[in-house]
Amino acid sequence: MAAFHMGECIRKTKEGRPLSTDEIRQLVKGITAETPIPDYQLAAWLMAVCFSGLSDRETADLTMAMRDSGQTLHWELDGPVADKHSTGGVGDKTTLILAPIVASCGVYMPKMSGRGLGHTGGTIDKLESIPGFSTALEPDAFLRQVREIRCAVAMQTGDLAPADKKLYALRDVTETVDSIPLICASIMSKKLATGADHILLDVKVGSGAFMKNDADAAELARLMLAAAKADGRDCTCVLTDMDRPLGMCIGNALEVREAIEVLRGDAESELGVFCIRLAAELLRMAGKGTPAQCLAMAENAVKSGNAMKFFAKMIEKQGGDASVTEHPEKLLLSRCSRTLKAPAAGWIRSMHSEEIGRASVLLGAGKMTKTDSIDFGAGIRLHAKYGDEVRTGDPMMTLYAASESQLDEAEAKLQSAVEIAEEHPEERPLIRKTYSTGD
Amino acid sequence: MAAFHMGECIRKTKEGRPLSTDEIRQLVKGITAETPIPDYQLAAWLMAVCFSGLSDRETADLTMAMRDSGQTLHWELDGPVADKHSTGGVGDKTTLILAPIVASCGVYMPKMSGRGLGHTGGTIDKLESIPGFSTALEPDAFLRQVREIRCAVAMQTGDLAPADKKLYALRDVTETVDSIPLICASIMSKKLATGADHILLDVKVGSGAFMKNDADAAELARLMLAAAKADGRDCTCVLTDMDRPLGMCIGNALEVREAIEVLRGDAESELGVFCIRLAAELLRMAGKGTPAQCLAMAENAVKSGNAMKFFAKMIEKQGGDASVTEHPEKLLLSRCSRTLKAPAAGWIRSMHSEEIGRASVLLGAGKMTKTDSIDFGAGIRLHAKYGDEVRTGDPMMTLYAASESQLDEAEAKLQSAVEIAEEHPEERPLIRKTYSTGD
Repeated sequence: MAAFHMGECIRKTKEGRPLSTDEIRQLVKGITAETPIPDYQLAAWLMAVCFSGLSDRETADLTMAMRDSGQTLHWELDGPVADKHSTGGVGDKTTLILAPIVASCGVYMPKMSGRGLGHTGGTIDKLESIPGFSTALEPDAFLRQVREIRCAVAMQTGDLAPADKKLYALRDVTETVDSIPLICASIMSKKLATGADHILLDVKVGSGAFMKNDADAAELARLMLAAAKADGRDCTCVLTDMDRPLGMCIGNALEVREAIEVLRGDAESELGVFCIRLAAELLRMAGKGTPAQCLAMAENAVKSGNAMKFFAKMIEKQGGDASVTEHPEKLLLSRCSRTLKAPAAGWIRSMHSEEIGRASVLLGAGKMTKTDSIDFGAGIRLHAKYGDEVRTGDPMMTLYAASESQLDEAEAKLQSAVEIAEEHPEERPLIRKTYSTGD
Repeated sequence: MAAFHMGECIRKTKEGRPLSTDEIRQLVKGITAETPIPDYQLAAWLMAVCFSGLSDRETADLTMAMRDSGQTLHWELDGPVADKHSTGGVGDKTTLILAPIVASCGVYMPKMSGRGLGHTGGTIDKLESIPGFSTALEPDAFLRQVREIRCAVAMQTGDLAPADKKLYALRDVTETVDSIPLICASIMSKKLATGADHILLDVKVGSGAFMKNDADAAELARLMLAAAKADGRDCTCVLTDMDRPLGMCIGNALEVREAIEVLRGDAESELGVFCIRLAAELLRMAGKGTPAQCLAMAENAVKSGNAMKFFAKMIEKQGGDASVTEHPEKLLLSRCSRTLKAPAAGWIRSMHSEEIGRASVLLGAGKMTKTDSIDFGAGIRLHAKYGDEVRTGDPMMTLYAASESQLDEAEAKLQSAVEIAEEHPEERPLIRKTYSTGD
């Protein structure tokens, strides 16, 4: 092992020369070392990466080194283990629906999730809006629950890919979040450390997502699949539309309500169809049958109420009030509400999801800074979605918040979030593209 | 004044959008503020500058803001005040010769200098090789000496452009030294704070210099002149050759010896002609006559021994042993020496000055790290220079060091530093180009 010089690494990346596998390993070791590489050198390197990029080999090396920076989990279960990750969007409650479906069909899904920040929500926050629900599971309790009901959703522990945790915090304050190789390494180091055999990656594309265009999303998908392949994992990556919010609700308890609506048998809604398709893909990867068989299996899990049973069991195991699945009205809903109406007749041609996400934060559904607290009952319920026809004065969306002033702020933010056109806009599928390590 | 967000500044520079004058002022204030901008954010910004550059207006704003980050000097003297700066080269003892010439011709030259680092030497180290010479002058003593003999050379004080001091230290460890706008701001903030009316900038170009090619050097010259002009200063910038060392000696006491040789009347050597031309340009800027008159004046200052008298006075005032000007053999010379001989006959076609500079560091003449100490008597005396004809076995250079092992190391480093060709190489002037605010 050659002597390591961080300055040399910065210079190489700055000049577009590749780092060796050994250099990348030592760099990542240096992030969490007792005498760590100084933040200013890491920051300079991160910015150089934003400009120079990293080669595919370097990206895979970085991913593996970050994976190995902490604990790596090895499941010893009697069936396939699946995992799923979304790059973050507005109204994305997919995990709440997909995990129970997949578990009810015999696939293990031990899921680590994160909190929301900025205009996108987080699965952990959403689940915590269920009274009593705990996402801070001890490793033993997590494993026991997975053994018993095949699914659990817990907060990402600090022991998994700690180098990513530190690097991400630094990227956040140095404007170096938007590098595709760094995003790949951040996501995949955690996914690979979590130890699933089958990984479904949902890359959101559009105004409400990190990836604003198809080309960037495809590049991220390509890099993540390459990292998965290099680590011998089975992986599928779907590019899904985030030019509109996913589903009809944005906000924590509101999104749990919508997930319950789907799990109660609403398999035909756009959200239901979407979650069932993703669940079916995970089942296919896990060897549960042909694509058609898996689709039928997932659909049936919803329609039979079997998936709902698993959701209720998961809530109960994690200390939550499972009766919300029967009585969703028990979930929080903020005191003040206001319904916004269509200012004109026509078809909804666009729903700017980033604006809608930001409005939901103003309502209290998200945090503006890490120390803010969340109002679980706040958010937005849409009454019409992309492509729907509306008449002047039709209800477009209802806003929920703790105060009228928050409603005012959010309403102002939403002024130009919805565009109504005189003609029906083109059909746009939610799933834009699918890539797989099997391709 | 708008609220300041360093993240926003990083993002703007990263995306190639200009920072406002106010943003640059606040950024620079934040460098030395009581609660400073974190180093990691500055480091990310510096790297973004390396890639995106800064506009001319931003560069001038940065220069002025850094100038104003500390004390700015205002000379109240009865004649013109001149300053000179070199971007750093191998064997560059120009200041030692030029300052006494200019002072002897009636122009004030209060000069702040720095130490050497890496393969280039520093004027302060060279002067300290004179027994007793002190470069750490109190402001009062400095001013008194300037009033009395018109010249003094002291160590840069921490009060001048402290933002540059901090930023430079950060650039040094984050591989962000080589950005031309940053180099401009670093040099010119100090020069403008030092308060001279007439500034001569010597931009070294070539293998032994920071600026490796003419285009970069010309760009740096252009930016520095623009900053000087914006601050109402008279400024000339010469681009000079650093593909070969300047003069025949490299190493601290050796360079003082060579300076003494020139000041003793050796006005015809390449080094003598060079220093006289630069001195003449400063005299012209200071209003001492036409270019021809100033050249004659500078030449005469050397030939008459008048410049040498000022050099001796300066040594004496700064506590040094002025008798070295009569007896240069009193200067240190390291105990071990070795003369390298020409391996073939022909003409010297190249003398790789960076390699020669690095060899001089190995001999002990420079520091590899900031905590190393310097052997003042170590270095290299060249016996032949670029364009000279040599026969096989002719002495090429003599190395001086404290130990035989250092001679071995340096000799190995010098293996390919000198190239001998069968034909006479083209003439290459030492001064490649001259730019001036008066142009």
